[in-house]
Amino acid sequence: MLEASARLTGLICGTQPMNDLWSPRATLQRMLDVEAALARASAAHHVIPQAAVAAIEAACHADQLDADALARDAALGGNLAIPLVKQLTARVKAADAEASKYVHWGATSQDIIDTATVLQLRDTLDLLDTMMRPTCDAIAALARTHRATPMIGRTWLQQALPITLGLKFAQWLDALLRHQERLDALRARVLVLQFGGAAGTLASLRDAAPAVTAALASDLGLHVPTLPWHTQRDRIAETASVFGMLIGTLGKIARDISLQMQTELGELGEPVAAGKGGSSTMPHKRNPVGCAAVLTAAARAPGLVATVLGGMVQEHERALGGWQAEWDALPDLARLAGGALANIEQITAGLDVNIERLAANLEVTHGLILGEAVMLALGDKIGRLDAHHLVERASKTAVQSGKSLFDVLSADSNVTQHLPVVQLKRLLDPAQYVGQAHAYVDAALALYTARTGRANHQE
Amino acid sequence: MLEASARLTGLICGTQPMNDLWSPRATLQRMLDVEAALARASAAHHVIPQAAVAAIEAACHADQLDADALARDAALGGNLAIPLVKQLTARVKAADAEASKYVHWGATSQDIIDTATVLQLRDTLDLLDTMMRPTCDAIAALARTHRATPMIGRTWLQQALPITLGLKFAQWLDALLRHQERLDALRARVLVLQFGGAAGTLASLRDAAPAVTAALASDLGLHVPTLPWHTQRDRIAETASVFGMLIGTLGKIARDISLQMQTELGELGEPVAAGKGGSSTMPHKRNPVGCAAVLTAAARAPGLVATVLGGMVQEHERALGGWQAEWDALPDLARLAGGALANIEQITAGLDVNIERLAANLEVTHGLILGEAVMLALGDKIGRLDAHHLVERASKTAVQSGKSLFDVLSADSNVTQHLPVVQLKRLLDPAQYVGQAHAYVDAALALYTARTGRANHQE
Amino acid sequence: MLEASARLTGLICGTQPMNDLWSPRATLQRMLDVEAALARASAAHHVIPQAAVAAIEAACHADQLDADALARDAALGGNLAIPLVKQLTARVKAADAEASKYVHWGATSQDIIDTATVLQLRDTLDLLDTMMRPTCDAIAALARTHRATPMIGRTWLQQALPITLGLKFAQWLDALLRHQERLDALRARVLVLQFGGAAGTLASLRDAAPAVTAALASDLGLHVPTLPWHTQRDRIAETASVFGMLIGTLGKIARDISLQMQTELGELGEPVAAGKGGSSTMPHKRNPVGCAAVLTAAARAPGLVATVLGGMVQEHERALGGWQAEWDALPDLARLAGGALANIEQITAGLDVNIERLAANLEVTHGLILGEAVMLALGDKIGRLDAHHLVERASKTAVQSGKSLFDVLSADSNVTQHLPVVQLKRLLDPAQYVGQAHAYVDAALALYTARTGRANHQE
Amino acid sequence: MLEASARLTGLICGTQPMNDLWSPRATLQRMLDVEAALARASAAHHVIPQAAVAAIEAACHADQLDADALARDAALGGNLAIPLVKQLTARVKAADAEASKYVHWGATSQDIIDTATVLQLRDTLDLLDTMMRPTCDAIAALARTHRATPMIGRTWLQQALPITLGLKFAQWLDALLRHQERLDALRARVLVLQFGGAAGTLASLRDAAPAVTAALASDLGLHVPTLPWHTQRDRIAETASVFGMLIGTLGKIARDISLQMQTELGELGEPVAAGKGGSSTMPHKRNPVGCAAVLTAAARAPGLVATVLGGMVQEHERALGGWQAEWDALPDLARLAGGALANIEQITAGLDVNIERLAANLEVTHGLILGEAVMLALGDKIGRLDAHHLVERASKTAVQSGKSLFDVLSADSNVTQHLPVVQLKRLLDPAQYVGQAHAYVDAALALYTARTGRANHQE
Repeated sequence: MLEASARLTGLICGTQPMNDLWSPRATLQRMLDVEAALARASAAHHVIPQAAVAAIEAACHADQLDADALARDAALGGNLAIPLVKQLTARVKAADAEASKYVHWGATSQDIIDTATVLQLRDTLDLLDTMMRPTCDAIAALARTHRATPMIGRTWLQQALPITLGLKFAQWLDALLRHQERLDALRARVLVLQFGGAAGTLASLRDAAPAVTAALASDLGLHVPTLPWHTQRDRIAETASVFGMLIGTLGKIARDISLQMQTELGELGEPVAAGKGGSSTMPHKRNPVGCAAVLTAAARAPGLVATVLGGMVQEHERALGGWQAEWDALPDLARLAGGALANIEQITAGLDVNIERLAANLEVTHGLILGEAVMLALGDKIGRLDAHHLVERASKTAVQSGKSLFDVLSADSNVTQHLPVVQLKRLLDPAQYVGQAHAYVDAALALYTARTGRANHQE
Repeated sequence: MLEASARLTGLICGTQPMNDLWSPRATLQRMLDVEAALARASAAHHVIPQAAVAAIEAACHADQLDADALARDAALGGNLAIPLVKQLTARVKAADAEASKYVHWGATSQDIIDTATVLQLRDTLDLLDTMMRPTCDAIAALARTHRATPMIGRTWLQQALPITLGLKFAQWLDALLRHQERLDALRARVLVLQFGGAAGTLASLRDAAPAVTAALASDLGLHVPTLPWHTQRDRIAETASVFGMLIGTLGKIARDISLQMQTELGELGEPVAAGKGGSSTMPHKRNPVGCAAVLTAAARAPGLVATVLGGMVQEHERALGGWQAEWDALPDLARLAGGALANIEQITAGLDVNIERLAANLEVTHGLILGEAVMLALGDKIGRLDAHHLVERASKTAVQSGKSLFDVLSADSNVTQHLPVVQLKRLLDPAQYVGQAHAYVDAALALYTARTGRANHQE
Repeated sequence: MLEASARLTGLICGTQPMNDLWSPRATLQRMLDVEAALARASAAHHVIPQAAVAAIEAACHADQLDADALARDAALGGNLAIPLVKQLTARVKAADAEASKYVHWGATSQDIIDTATVLQLRDTLDLLDTMMRPTCDAIAALARTHRATPMIGRTWLQQALPITLGLKFAQWLDALLRHQERLDALRARVLVLQFGGAAGTLASLRDAAPAVTAALASDLGLHVPTLPWHTQRDRIAETASVFGMLIGTLGKIARDISLQMQTELGELGEPVAAGKGGSSTMPHKRNPVGCAAVLTAAARAPGLVATVLGGMVQEHERALGGWQAEWDALPDLARLAGGALANIEQITAGLDVNIERLAANLEVTHGLILGEAVMLALGDKIGRLDAHHLVERASKTAVQSGKSLFDVLSADSNVTQHLPVVQLKRLLDPAQYVGQAHAYVDAALALYTARTGRANHQE
Repeated sequence: MLEASARLTGLICGTQPMNDLWSPRATLQRMLDVEAALARASAAHHVIPQAAVAAIEAACHADQLDADALARDAALGGNLAIPLVKQLTARVKAADAEASKYVHWGATSQDIIDTATVLQLRDTLDLLDTMMRPTCDAIAALARTHRATPMIGRTWLQQALPITLGLKFAQWLDALLRHQERLDALRARVLVLQFGGAAGTLASLRDAAPAVTAALASDLGLHVPTLPWHTQRDRIAETASVFGMLIGTLGKIARDISLQMQTELGELGEPVAAGKGGSSTMPHKRNPVGCAAVLTAAARAPGLVATVLGGMVQEHERALGGWQAEWDALPDLARLAGGALANIEQITAGLDVNIERLAANLEVTHGLILGEAVMLALGDKIGRLDAHHLVERASKTAVQSGKSLFDVLSADSNVTQHLPVVQLKRLLDPAQYVGQAHAYVDAALALYTARTGRANHQE
């Protein structure tokens, strides 16, 4: 439905299941879920009559609400819960006048909105978890497959020294595993009930307050917090930050892939999908459409996290401005995290690796990238300083003459008397100078296996 | 329609006309307007057959598009223009196969999206202008009415010295006039056509490019830029910044009103509206619902402006990520600016000024806030230093004894021999110690009249 | 030294120990500490001669560097490590030419800068921990002391229902305990070595790489990461976020205190310190100087966190721009977190609580804030709806007549026949309608005791 | 001096003249300049004795202040002006006790700090202007020189269609000209005096207030605002935004240069400077050190602008938090704008253009980038649709066979019967398919000449 696409970014960086979780309808339904649970919990502890529950539950269906009126009245009341309770009460009243007196009993608007948000966050964490697994599986498989595939490492956007493609994947995996850890740690802190009533004391529930609180949390499957947290927003800020960090890492992955997809590099490619990223008039183009979506998310997330952090400075027992600023920022972050992860999941599942171009790009400098390898080996024989001078001079000669470093060095008896041509050739083989790349890949895969209890590939 | 309220903040800080301007439907229609104008301009200069125009124009109606397919395909293509052109072409083809060959001729997706955005920005600037006038009128009228109404000036959230309520309004007015200036200046720079084709050279239009460009701009009522600006986003960044600044000033107004509405101060009140801000169970409450909406906008705007500024660093001829990040951030800023202004318009139109409470709050310190006035007058007689010591001592006595400063000073012959009680009374009248407040109000009103050519009140 | 105050905010929101940790001198010394440890670790595993270590160690003193040259050359090389290594090498050479060949062996600039930063972060976490303890102790003691001190709860900046002052303190405490948890969790993830060499493979160390890595980490007391993390910045982003969240909570505390310090409220006061916050000409003023400093930190932190998050999108093996943007943002966040915490520590240690004003402000609405309490009690007798109408009408009468709610209700036989005057009086006592406030305070204090093993007060 | 480098980013993205303008010493001196001017203006209108002026002026030298004490006392008072006035008064008193009574007469701290900031902003605008001229000159000269130098245009980081290098430069120039316009427009709005006294009414100056205001503004060369603007921060926010926008455009330039400097592209190079960006062990590397500094500025600016915008929501007559947050953010933005501009000035002054690599990169796709040119020409003969199919098929054949598009097309008689080989060759010459590139370059240069009155090159 295009309406959901009022959010144009969402169109290119979203994923349907996540968009659904945070749709207007889902938000309303989660608020109604809280109202229904509140009725059950209150009745269980004799705060409201048991007889009122059925009628309230029966009315707690988002589809039955008048959305136009909700939108109009939310502006008057200052939030969505006020008109929602009004409509809900009217609907209950139509069926059971007595029951309608007990709608929303003891709660304040923020209790309903915050708890509904927490329920949506639980769904969000579940969904991210669901997507994280195949993504990590795919990256782990790529790391294993390309554990020893040499490629040029780049620093400052310049060719530096060889690495392996697997090492790059292992770094992505290692970072994603830390995000998984953070997402897990979040659950204990954020999946808590909000229930405090008008001033956070639950005064109107009198002695029944603790029992209703416990029953409500239990009904919804949430933790009971030490105390209500209406204007203590660190839980929400942490959630926003973790989403922002995850998006940042996914953005780094997309940055790398899109740079390696440059026409002039051609090392990686997003999986080809019908209608995706191609151009009929420019058949050589392979637009990194998925990466662009992820980079868009990464461009938007920091400002949204900052909004939530800035909103923490809230007034007294319930605030004006700071809390309300979360209402779009947090769902936006969830949608962008979901969309970014879905894109990376899809890209890594079918990542196109061009071995020839990876190899060809290692030759661009005609061996200069391996000067250090020769220098070290030569240094063992003639001392580091002399070796340095020798290789530095040879490199300059190579640059000026257009010859390869091998050609220059193998023509220099000062070199060949210590390093026979066969050894020189080996030293100038990029695959031989990748340091700990293999070991690092293994370490990341071992960590992955330990964390997930899954083998580190997709079999 | 609640769909538009996927944006929950929009519900409390939006205004229907602005939300409509940036609705999905309006966005699509503006894109189609550009496509239709492009067909006319191209035909006028013989780039496409004149015969194709009518069929293209006939198909350029947003209601005829399949929104679901658009949303789905936008993710594949990376933007909304690609599937829009696809659907448009199909629709034209159904009516006139030959005409369908000439849809979108010579343009790139970004040409359509950017130009549509510029058209929406023109509507936005018009709408802000429309709202700015009555808002400034109302504030000017308030400034005139309360030019001499004394109130306590507060610094560090502490009572400081008297000012007049009119001075506060004059400051708001003065700031809004500068924003009007900025909004005006924006038009010349931002209301320009985007039209460059695939790489910004309009190569496919060959020699007709300048003529089509001029005709297209003329058709849409936009300026012709020096050259296409696909990855030069300073125009958009300036627009975002100006919206952000306007929201900042509106936020300052809302902050002041909400602080002065505190139960303990009670100096100002938002206009009473049915169902707005009241509480049946807490009849003493008068929630600053409009101010909260404005403060929410002010909490969100900085992060959105930062997103647009951060997005300026775009790659080459057309970018990935930075441009796309504007798609939601800029409309959000427009919506928030519109909503914040609408709220301030409504609040200032009916602002409730409680003269009694303003006066009462001037008495809270029992005259201490006017020690400086006495000190200056006494200083004229006995020297500034002696006067300072005398008044400082009297102030301490007043604080400790709970007496008013007048009682302490009028009982001290060292004071009364220089300042008779009548004069002392006058010196301790807050209305007498407001410095340039009246003059500043007059200056702001004079500027307003000069700028608008309107009298500075609503008669 | 004013130089450190190029940072003007730092002047009002800093604390000397934290500023010292992140001073230029400390930063250089930490970099030199890493260089010295690298020499020791490399020598231990025969990568460099043992004989070189002493000379290198001897030169690793920040005071011996030429700071002017460092600043000048950093711009040429692009970071501070390049000229630092140059100067260090020159100094070692002056003492021991042979040793100078082994300075910085195998490391890249980023290894030194990142690891030095991690060492500073460890000191920062230690220092925050040191300040957090007395702050939490002071707040816990306040919560215990004022567990039952009634005050008005405020929502929307309006008086709502009574709470206790202790409840407010308990909420602060509860949030700070979660921050302590986050700061603790951070150590395992962020206190890790950075050591990867030019492209993150440690190729130049050949087979000795793992052993040198382990020895270097052990020497510095840091964890060994799975693999180098040059362009995986989630660790740094998490640190920035946690600092930002802590500052947000401290900002909320400062916001509340400064609002309650308003002249018209007068409920709380920052501790009086010589020269702090007073005004000789305005003796009634008590500027919340400490709160202003904390609020300044809270205004700055979100933008800094956003900068670090935005910087996560880094290119390839070592980046340009994103990494460098951390260099000021992260220290700024550490300084602001330290300064904000120091201010809150000082304020809460001597917080001035004005019991009379707290009580007086509960009377401002003449009992209207307790209408709900009467309504509930009356509802038990005559049904909720009738009770609601009765109290609502009485509240309106009270507002219009200027009488207290008690006077109106006690004059109404419809009320007194169910609620005798004694009971009515009790119902209109704010201290009797604070709901779970006492229980929540106890819960927060119990959690605090459990977490810290300390009694929840300062005895 | 390294102290100034507490700001590590400043080390790599600063320029000495700008850093000097905002040094602690310069800030203090500007504050003292305001105090001296205030004494002169007050004496001229008999508010203070003429005799006091000389002693006050004599003491207004930053070098004479005790910086340690200033830093310490600023934390107590909440800003730097309070201890500065204290020290200044003490110094004046030591020389002339009578004169010391008249220091800072009638002003509030914020008057001094804001006006000093405005003076620094004037210097900043002058300095930016000074740097902008040679930068624009250099870019204009580059645009003229390379008006017709063909290069590949890139979209989505993929090769798209040819443009000219001059067009890229013309786009940069065009954007910088708009920034010059914004910087100019800023002067009228921001170069205004701040002078309002404790509550913004100048009450303590009594009738002399307007005359002293005018004299003070005149003395400092600033405009007189309609009224004081202590908590109306739109002027500062606009300044921050304009700096942020300028940095954004400079970041875009740096992004392009650094991408074109990639080893695999090699089209552009930063000017070679001793010790800058080279690597002795990796002679093929040419690190974009200047670009990295600019990109660092671009990564930091959005968060700083957001901080200033967020700070606009200030309380009452003088605020707590929002104003103070400007103190570092605004100077940081000025320093970053200066540093970024200095880097781009230096880079464009000596930009290394590699014509061979520009040409070679146009050949990477073996002509595919010019399929559209052939299609259009062929379309004139056989209809657009048939031409499209023909070229599309030929492109696919070229990709699959590894042949050039020319080879495929020239072997196809369906093509050659309409387009003889000579014409085909011409169509496949990138220099022939750059559309309006030349015209756009000319337009930008013409605008530049019109704006500056200077010829558009450096002769």
